[in-house]
Amino acid sequence: MQLLHSLCRVPAPAGNEAALTQFVLNYVHEHQASWEHRPEIVADDRFQDCILLVFGQPRTAIFAHLDSIGFTVRYGRQLVRIGGPQVEAGYRLVGQDSQGLVDCTLTVDNETGELGYAFHREIDRGTELTFYCDFRETVTTVQSCYLDNRLGVWNALRLCETLEHGIIAFSCWEEHGGGSVAYLAKFIYETYGVRQALISDITWVTEGVHAGQGCAISLRDSLIPRRAYVDRIRAIAAASGIAHQLEVEGSGGSDAKELQHAAAPWDWCFIGAPEDHVHTPNELVDKRDIESMLALYRVLMQEL
Amino acid sequence: MQLLHSLCRVPAPAGNEAALTQFVLNYVHEHQASWEHRPEIVADDRFQDCILLVFGQPRTAIFAHLDSIGFTVRYGRQLVRIGGPQVEAGYRLVGQDSQGLVDCTLTVDNETGELGYAFHREIDRGTELTFYCDFRETVTTVQSCYLDNRLGVWNALRLCETLEHGIIAFSCWEEHGGGSVAYLAKFIYETYGVRQALISDITWVTEGVHAGQGCAISLRDSLIPRRAYVDRIRAIAAASGIAHQLEVEGSGGSDAKELQHAAAPWDWCFIGAPEDHVHTPNELVDKRDIESMLALYRVLMQEL
Amino acid sequence: MQLLHSLCRVPAPAGNEAALTQFVLNYVHEHQASWEHRPEIVADDRFQDCILLVFGQPRTAIFAHLDSIGFTVRYGRQLVRIGGPQVEAGYRLVGQDSQGLVDCTLTVDNETGELGYAFHREIDRGTELTFYCDFRETVTTVQSCYLDNRLGVWNALRLCETLEHGIIAFSCWEEHGGGSVAYLAKFIYETYGVRQALISDITWVTEGVHAGQGCAISLRDSLIPRRAYVDRIRAIAAASGIAHQLEVEGSGGSDAKELQHAAAPWDWCFIGAPEDHVHTPNELVDKRDIESMLALYRVLMQEL
Repeated sequence: MQLLHSLCRVPAPAGNEAALTQFVLNYVHEHQASWEHRPEIVADDRFQDCILLVFGQPRTAIFAHLDSIGFTVRYGRQLVRIGGPQVEAGYRLVGQDSQGLVDCTLTVDNETGELGYAFHREIDRGTELTFYCDFRETVTTVQSCYLDNRLGVWNALRLCETLEHGIIAFSCWEEHGGGSVAYLAKFIYETYGVRQALISDITWVTEGVHAGQGCAISLRDSLIPRRAYVDRIRAIAAASGIAHQLEVEGSGGSDAKELQHAAAPWDWCFIGAPEDHVHTPNELVDKRDIESMLALYRVLMQEL
Repeated sequence: MQLLHSLCRVPAPAGNEAALTQFVLNYVHEHQASWEHRPEIVADDRFQDCILLVFGQPRTAIFAHLDSIGFTVRYGRQLVRIGGPQVEAGYRLVGQDSQGLVDCTLTVDNETGELGYAFHREIDRGTELTFYCDFRETVTTVQSCYLDNRLGVWNALRLCETLEHGIIAFSCWEEHGGGSVAYLAKFIYETYGVRQALISDITWVTEGVHAGQGCAISLRDSLIPRRAYVDRIRAIAAASGIAHQLEVEGSGGSDAKELQHAAAPWDWCFIGAPEDHVHTPNELVDKRDIESMLALYRVLMQEL
Repeated sequence: MQLLHSLCRVPAPAGNEAALTQFVLNYVHEHQASWEHRPEIVADDRFQDCILLVFGQPRTAIFAHLDSIGFTVRYGRQLVRIGGPQVEAGYRLVGQDSQGLVDCTLTVDNETGELGYAFHREIDRGTELTFYCDFRETVTTVQSCYLDNRLGVWNALRLCETLEHGIIAFSCWEEHGGGSVAYLAKFIYETYGVRQALISDITWVTEGVHAGQGCAISLRDSLIPRRAYVDRIRAIAAASGIAHQLEVEGSGGSDAKELQHAAAPWDWCFIGAPEDHVHTPNELVDKRDIESMLALYRVLMQEL
């Protein structure tokens, strides 16, 4: 879990993912020699802060978003949200502005709900703040801010160790309206003819999806994937014997939104471990669900 | 109305339109020999469950969505909506899961509004349910679930009998956020240079649009089409002498949303018969408005 | 300010921008001989009512939307909004229908908030109404309806006088959901390789952005631009010595929405003068902020 811990500590609020992009690129450069197959690395100006790793003759692309939720400093001591963080007075927030490192606490006005910060000085307008990373590991769980989606990124990087054919796409802005998957998807479809996707992201523990019972295959969230594709995935998962759960939600979204609305016929399915304490500094995931997620992706990337 | 009845009975909730796709393809294969002109049929993996029929040298494309509203089985006896169905306790819902056919009734919690079903057993998670089809025809009306949009599909198939130049596009997911028109529109524009569209869909009886007074030409809904294009259509309609009404709404949408936001300069106009009891099992349309719709499309496809 | 006054008087509600398109084209044809460099004018059927002016070897594109907010006549004496106008009973609205010119007043139902008009006759269904233009100029300010975005258009036209390299894109539908920037952006990116954008539009006077202190560089609104690009712009602005302010909002949008979601890696930044009395007939802008806006765009188009 050292890699996961490192990933959780790198700040990458939506719109300013560059530090995590560099971390992932460094990781790939350092580790690819030990992978069974080496990918083509596509990461230039045409892709902003996104990265594509292309292995062999790809049939399926995995999308894992790099960015996280957070806050932007507005005027005075006001904050506005990046994405949809939970807000509780006292959450520790960190960042950096022209005067140096920032380490402050979140304030929430009892009456108006307006967000602010408590710090010994004013912070530069436009500074991004993210949750302080307090990474906690037990025998059975990991807990930290930003498991959504550093676990999805971790899953993708671990897959690289054995992946023979497939594409890994590290995307940006997922937590705040999207903005990179449209062009990643266009490039992938036009260059490689790939139009099957898996969304390597983290979902919710609910009354129907429980911690420790395997990663979730989402049958729908706010959008509905094509039934025929999801049925193929379910059949492969069932035959694999790997623990998994079926999720059905009426809300929530992912990088799949941009695939669904792309000008190409993408089939997609969200598959990810469930977490508790969603979008707080205390996101909690069961290690069995992480193992299930990685194992299921390995099988799917071979058989889809 | 036998064709319309058959269309209404085929289940095709958004995301699982395959049965209706097959029905339409079969219909085309069986009937095209009797049509004045035979189309090129474009329906392969690049188009998921959509179908394109290309006649002659097309200048205008008609979009008719195959999918319908419905419900997805969640956990326990919960349901979540597909699209925006009206909900009334007691509506009869049908479907199929691993244990066989399902024929149950909708329940609505009086306090929470939570949706569920009453059935003698639990239904598989993720199963789609649709309204039971009780097709009712009188001398002057037809009534059924899913006239929206099986009437739009019917209109398109009837047009095929005489159409010389034009494209018919049968789309998916319209009731649940869209997802196919973007790539259909891209293919049509890039392959045929066509960027004029008519939306063959069903609208609402309102204080300004009345049953029996002709199909509606929508001047706007939640989106606003380009005035110059709509004015051309109005002029053709006026000159034709075919009964029609002008609709102006501030809400509602259609496949036109994806055309409006496409990366191509689509002009579009929604033209369809109005219905009462929208998005219930009892959608009601006046036959005069159906006749007007078909007649107006025939003229427009010649003159636009 | 004569040009600005003329621009404010031309009606161009979203979806019916043709009159303003023609005005701008006429202006370009009449004045380009006096410009330091002459642009390629791209304005044909592929671009609906939009216009592109391409100067030299462009690296950056400026987007200025032509359209405005307004109202559409519905049934009886009802109105529905085009975009998001403020509504106050008594606002003077003008338009034209089959019976001639319309000059009426807005009514607002006290209880329901329903919008209507007071006029001596019924107005044709579907007629667009816009605010009556009462253009007011003082030594320090201009005030009128539709400074949003005729000032953005004015800024772009004034830039043409000296622009050597760059693209000006006049867009449509910005106030009502967009619909032209997607195809303009695609054409610009594919034809010229340009993917840097500036949004020439008007923003709000707020507690953090004040009239008279220079035009605003927006660090974010409802969307978040890529930090690296905005930082480059801030550095150029700081070095220029031109007065400007930094804006941070959690809501609001612009033509940038379509760039952010385009299938190309656009970097964008909203830069514009702030106005008071937003979306009323009395939009008010300080002349110093107009000067600052034009000066800053001149520098940015050279240095970006």
